[in-house]
Amino acid sequence: MTVFTPRNPDYQRCVRESFARQNFMGFIGASLSRVAPGEVDIELPNQQSLTQQHGYFHAGATASIADSAAGYAALSLFSPGNGVLTTEFKINLLAPAKGEKLVARGRVEKSGRLLTICKSDVVAIDDGTETHVATALLTMMQIEGLEG
Amino acid sequence: MTVFTPRNPDYQRCVRESFARQNFMGFIGASLSRVAPGEVDIELPNQQSLTQQHGYFHAGATASIADSAAGYAALSLFSPGNGVLTTEFKINLLAPAKGEKLVARGRVEKSGRLLTICKSDVVAIDDGTETHVATALLTMMQIEGLEG
Amino acid sequence: MTVFTPRNPDYQRCVRESFARQNFMGFIGASLSRVAPGEVDIELPNQQSLTQQHGYFHAGATASIADSAAGYAALSLFSPGNGVLTTEFKINLLAPAKGEKLVARGRVEKSGRLLTICKSDVVAIDDGTETHVATALLTMMQIEGLEG
Amino acid sequence: MTVFTPRNPDYQRCVRESFARQNFMGFIGASLSRVAPGEVDIELPNQQSLTQQHGYFHAGATASIADSAAGYAALSLFSPGNGVLTTEFKINLLAPAKGEKLVARGRVEKSGRLLTICKSDVVAIDDGTETHVATALLTMMQIEGLEG
Repeated sequence: MTVFTPRNPDYQRCVRESFARQNFMGFIGASLSRVAPGEVDIELPNQQSLTQQHGYFHAGATASIADSAAGYAALSLFSPGNGVLTTEFKINLLAPAKGEKLVARGRVEKSGRLLTICKSDVVAIDDGTETHVATALLTMMQIEGLEG
Repeated sequence: MTVFTPRNPDYQRCVRESFARQNFMGFIGASLSRVAPGEVDIELPNQQSLTQQHGYFHAGATASIADSAAGYAALSLFSPGNGVLTTEFKINLLAPAKGEKLVARGRVEKSGRLLTICKSDVVAIDDGTETHVATALLTMMQIEGLEG
Repeated sequence: MTVFTPRNPDYQRCVRESFARQNFMGFIGASLSRVAPGEVDIELPNQQSLTQQHGYFHAGATASIADSAAGYAALSLFSPGNGVLTTEFKINLLAPAKGEKLVARGRVEKSGRLLTICKSDVVAIDDGTETHVATALLTMMQIEGLEG
Repeated sequence: MTVFTPRNPDYQRCVRESFARQNFMGFIGASLSRVAPGEVDIELPNQQSLTQQHGYFHAGATASIADSAAGYAALSLFSPGNGVLTTEFKINLLAPAKGEKLVARGRVEKSGRLLTICKSDVVAIDDGTETHVATALLTMMQIEGLEG
């Protein structure tokens, strides 16, 4: 696994402040559980409001935290003052997403000046058991002078 | 464009009832605006709660309606009594998603016995102008005996 | 459909010369059949050497022409002196790729300064009948000062 | 990493015979370098005939071995008498693919009755140095009664 050195000494605060401004994350009940250089985890506790028609987490909810975890993994390595935008992602749903909570683990695969390629794995935690429910590949863009 | 003949004469009711059971769609404020054989549109009005850190719709919100629109486009062509699950999707974000509302247009590309391949285009409507903000390719699976 | 105005008046020659330098296209027997602003078609006649284990075109051969068609559709809109690299693509295989030849139709969806999003549809021609065998979404990058 | 138990005791022969029937792999000069349960590596030595316009391996060549490595990783876990078809894949190109050879490492992420989700990482070997040049997510389908 690649070890990354952040260019922004204040990357922790930068990621946490930007996450706090993502209203959608707060709205669905997601929280940051880990912020390290090139690595961000996001947790999403189960709620009736997040389900699809069979009672599992909606694929859109799963994708939302996979996307934010990867975006913030990318942002943690950016230069100060630059922001992040998702340009594309692909997600494979491996198993029904059910349990007490989901955890999305965003990791930087390749950090470029302009584009950062990330992966994000989502697991469901149910009674202490972890099931791999989704895996994603994502491209993030570094935008100069865009806050967060 | 392919013209599809639904196998389920009651496909309209089937899609609408399943959509009503997707709590996540109601939670984010999305509604069905069009249901035809192999074609489903979903609208999502703008709200503070749906934004990412720069005030645009969160990519996860955009992806959520792209996914549901495609899933229901697929379901509209299934045999009665069968349900739909997303197996994977890929979405390219073409422009910042901002405006009064988003509309996701899910369309079946290829209807198979087991897998249905769909595309979904998302536009943002702002003051009467339509901007193409995302395009997605999705694979849906037909599950026998799974309601909706 | 978007109508594009090429920034490079000599885009036809630029695309054709770059294609001629893609040894892999010549090696598999592919040829350019259409070059217009934002639109490039590539044909691939059937050969024993291109098949997978069941005698169909290998998915890699299908993907190769889908990729090149999209890349040259993007290049046709670039400023003179800039080159193109694929950053990512996703392809859904819709039906077995069999017949006399494949045709990949690359089209620009969104032309940006840095990234160009394309789609590519591949059809198989068999005895005058056209079957849609693959659909792809691709991201191309414009590289300043990189020839072709 | 998941440890898989093959259902087909003769999986080695099954994979190798099917690979030998993939004319396209022989045509581009690719060879199987590792076959284990759920894990297949394919090598592709550099040749002038495999390049794109800047002299790197064409993305189609990279994608071709990524696809076959994943397909055979999936096939290694299938029941005897069943074959494999790619339904879709997505590939991110991380760095220019240049060097003496490419190695694609296909690994099964999730083995299902019908669909098998794989990843494939491609590295370039140049003078003993390994560079990660591509990463892919792929869906393979198990087809009953289809040889290989």
